[in-house]
Amino acid sequence: MKTALLDHGYVKLVEWWGGDERIVEAARMSTAKGFQGWGPIHDKACNSVVMACDCYSDDCTKCSHYPALPNYAELIACNCTPTSGDEKLLAYLWHNHHATPFEMAGMTIEVQAPIFVFREWHRHRTQSYNELSARYTPLPDLNYVPTVERLMINAGGTNKQAGTVAGAETLSEDWANVFRQKLQREYDMCEGLYQDALSAGVPKELARLIVPVGRYSRMRASANLRNWLAFLTLRMAPNAQWEIRQYASAVGEMIAAKFPRAWELFAAAK
Amino acid sequence: MKTALLDHGYVKLVEWWGGDERIVEAARMSTAKGFQGWGPIHDKACNSVVMACDCYSDDCTKCSHYPALPNYAELIACNCTPTSGDEKLLAYLWHNHHATPFEMAGMTIEVQAPIFVFREWHRHRTQSYNELSARYTPLPDLNYVPTVERLMINAGGTNKQAGTVAGAETLSEDWANVFRQKLQREYDMCEGLYQDALSAGVPKELARLIVPVGRYSRMRASANLRNWLAFLTLRMAPNAQWEIRQYASAVGEMIAAKFPRAWELFAAAK
Amino acid sequence: MKTALLDHGYVKLVEWWGGDERIVEAARMSTAKGFQGWGPIHDKACNSVVMACDCYSDDCTKCSHYPALPNYAELIACNCTPTSGDEKLLAYLWHNHHATPFEMAGMTIEVQAPIFVFREWHRHRTQSYNELSARYTPLPDLNYVPTVERLMINAGGTNKQAGTVAGAETLSEDWANVFRQKLQREYDMCEGLYQDALSAGVPKELARLIVPVGRYSRMRASANLRNWLAFLTLRMAPNAQWEIRQYASAVGEMIAAKFPRAWELFAAAK
Amino acid sequence: MKTALLDHGYVKLVEWWGGDERIVEAARMSTAKGFQGWGPIHDKACNSVVMACDCYSDDCTKCSHYPALPNYAELIACNCTPTSGDEKLLAYLWHNHHATPFEMAGMTIEVQAPIFVFREWHRHRTQSYNELSARYTPLPDLNYVPTVERLMINAGGTNKQAGTVAGAETLSEDWANVFRQKLQREYDMCEGLYQDALSAGVPKELARLIVPVGRYSRMRASANLRNWLAFLTLRMAPNAQWEIRQYASAVGEMIAAKFPRAWELFAAAK
Repeated sequence: MKTALLDHGYVKLVEWWGGDERIVEAARMSTAKGFQGWGPIHDKACNSVVMACDCYSDDCTKCSHYPALPNYAELIACNCTPTSGDEKLLAYLWHNHHATPFEMAGMTIEVQAPIFVFREWHRHRTQSYNELSARYTPLPDLNYVPTVERLMINAGGTNKQAGTVAGAETLSEDWANVFRQKLQREYDMCEGLYQDALSAGVPKELARLIVPVGRYSRMRASANLRNWLAFLTLRMAPNAQWEIRQYASAVGEMIAAKFPRAWELFAAAK
Repeated sequence: MKTALLDHGYVKLVEWWGGDERIVEAARMSTAKGFQGWGPIHDKACNSVVMACDCYSDDCTKCSHYPALPNYAELIACNCTPTSGDEKLLAYLWHNHHATPFEMAGMTIEVQAPIFVFREWHRHRTQSYNELSARYTPLPDLNYVPTVERLMINAGGTNKQAGTVAGAETLSEDWANVFRQKLQREYDMCEGLYQDALSAGVPKELARLIVPVGRYSRMRASANLRNWLAFLTLRMAPNAQWEIRQYASAVGEMIAAKFPRAWELFAAAK
Repeated sequence: MKTALLDHGYVKLVEWWGGDERIVEAARMSTAKGFQGWGPIHDKACNSVVMACDCYSDDCTKCSHYPALPNYAELIACNCTPTSGDEKLLAYLWHNHHATPFEMAGMTIEVQAPIFVFREWHRHRTQSYNELSARYTPLPDLNYVPTVERLMINAGGTNKQAGTVAGAETLSEDWANVFRQKLQREYDMCEGLYQDALSAGVPKELARLIVPVGRYSRMRASANLRNWLAFLTLRMAPNAQWEIRQYASAVGEMIAAKFPRAWELFAAAK
Repeated sequence: MKTALLDHGYVKLVEWWGGDERIVEAARMSTAKGFQGWGPIHDKACNSVVMACDCYSDDCTKCSHYPALPNYAELIACNCTPTSGDEKLLAYLWHNHHATPFEMAGMTIEVQAPIFVFREWHRHRTQSYNELSARYTPLPDLNYVPTVERLMINAGGTNKQAGTVAGAETLSEDWANVFRQKLQREYDMCEGLYQDALSAGVPKELARLIVPVGRYSRMRASANLRNWLAFLTLRMAPNAQWEIRQYASAVGEMIAAKFPRAWELFAAAK
């Protein structure tokens, strides 16, 4: 999975582990039981004829235990009264803030984003990071220029966090366009000085001083599911900056794809 | 993988992620390069005829980049002078304490061990834990009785950390045997009271007061590779208690199996 | 401050730092302002005659800035309209989950509690711990015997977390008394074996196997205020075990004494 | 304590807690003893006549226990053979990597530094941070311009980490001077656009895109002593960037002033 974001950014799924089942298995450590299966769970005497048995019971002779996410379409109606499965425990854990089992799953991603987004991201101290270093490699000349629509989102000014300085004019579409041009020109000037300094022998670690926080960087980030969800709680919130919210949403889609049941609980709680 | 330990304990591998390659990939984020392949790496002009090209070079037209662990048997001798591969970077990271890339891999295990071992284990605050809870389920009647050999390891007393009280006699094999019997009898007495109390309606959370720290418990533990290696540094050390050292060694064997190149560096450093 | 708990336990305040003001100061870093003073804040033109000026204004010539918790009784009515002080910001931080400023204050305590309480406590991985070690020193013969009242709290059984095993009888006061006696006798038996083994030369680290989890241990614990409050959220909750709730309440009283405004917000939220 | 750094930066001590004694006290929890006093420790029979007794013994009737750092000049020679004090334990802890007692002390500072320094600093995930936010307040127009001497440190190029790009010229003093002028002019251009955008109603959170990473920001940072020393190990190292090394050295001086015995051990180990 890879999602393009802003003008030059992306989020790419590198790896995930655990899964909804691992969360349940870990929680069941406290009572010495394991994962029992997702619902509906048919009772043991269920005698419906099924192609692939879906009873999930512990001693059914027709099926193998703990199948992965079943193909619900294949389930054939039977004459028992199925009970709910481990979705119920997962929901119980979530709603009662038993957070540690959610540490047994996780995900590593690769992110390309402007430096000011990374500055907010790195405040999350429970993730692991490895980022491009301008001490070792000149940063590629990729810079974020917001669209006019983005610039105008809060013109009029209801969102305090995205506010303007006291006494500012109301942003016009014309000026938003002007800003885009001026910003690009200034980015180019900075890049010009950056390259000149590098060629003249200024150490990379000092030539970078003029790099603006709108410049793109790149990193790997890894965390367990508990901490990814904590990140999303803060960074998908309406008062988070619009740019990091785009990244958070893309991360959320990856979690939804790989941990569908945990995601459903998280999404319903928002 | 599952390793039996002590009289009733075990360590079982539940899951691992990342791998030696992910560590290299993450480290290469700083210079915007990815994993280049394990050695030997053939130079770009290498003109050996190979079924699946093994040159690992960035602009070779014969091969796809970044193959997974290659089948070394398929490599055909060539007339270039191959250089060492990403083992070199991995070793550089290790020896220069660039530890964060080692956070991009990890492992989850299940452990059955006496409570006093868990008490030491849980001091490691960078792991995730889910343990059997005696508030919810009576602990199974499994108790650790050390062997005579184990009891006698330090008789004579060179190891200060495994020491006896001042004025103690020198432990004899006879008394070691006596201790084993007395210990088992006392475990049985405790279990008797535990069961009586449970039957009489003492809440599980209070009936457990008499459970000795030699009683077995069970947990899942998950951590990234950096933190597993930090755990092993302390718990495979000669001054760690013999019992947790057995567990640490078993964990080490799992790491050796799944992260062979990182393990080699760790093992050489000990 | 020192609070006696259970039959042999205690919590003792060792040290605290920061304070409510530091939280406000830290939060004000984001807007480049510092601590402004607790309310009521009188306007600058306030011309009331006061012995020790209480205007808290930045440029009042009559008073020193930033007085410590003022003696409200000494305030003399004035003819301005005082506004609320930094309590307002503190409340805003709390209610909007801006948690990081609460990391700028903290507290170190000393705790004597039964091992099963420490087992729950040590699951909190954001605290720093140093505990008595039975590898180095024989544990003192102090063991927790719950009172009859404590044993009977849940007789009848509404609290699921404090439950009994399936099929258990309803606990009678008579049996509660019997349990207390049997428990004490069993503690004595365990201590007898412990001492015999120590004298015979069994290493301390093995002689301790028979020590029950009702035995007292002792530790220092240190954390910042954010993490102390997270601890209290879980351990003062009704589903926490009664014993650790007693400790949590004692910790809460210390926080209330040293961080009164932060505590007020926490207590109101419960 | 406040130290001016670079052209507009500083480190200011806000608060410290614990102290060398707390480290010893915490370590002594494992053996149920407390802080015994710094050396030299006179034996209990020491009968020298002293104004304020300096024997530090536990049951001396002449002195109060645990005096703070004594005035060694006042000590009067006696006729016993003094032994070394708790410096010995502190050194043992340090040299054997018993790191947790060093978590019982700590320090909060305020830092003004360029954004690129903060980017390195914030990779340390065990500190607590509260920083000026350009979403809420326009950043003051303070920008880092390195001196010619600083620019020339590595001209010639022995330090790989502070290196230049491949093919760069050798930096001349003339060009270093030119760079300083060009950098200042470019900073001014960025500030011009920043202010224009703010006035025109571009939200603060977007107007900041053009702010270069050489711009100063400000924060509070808090950590325990263990983690401050880990920070210094990495950031006082020769391969750390020169700028953050200046900050690390200033932090080190504060630690030396407040935790003199722990600092001595750290400094000797470097």
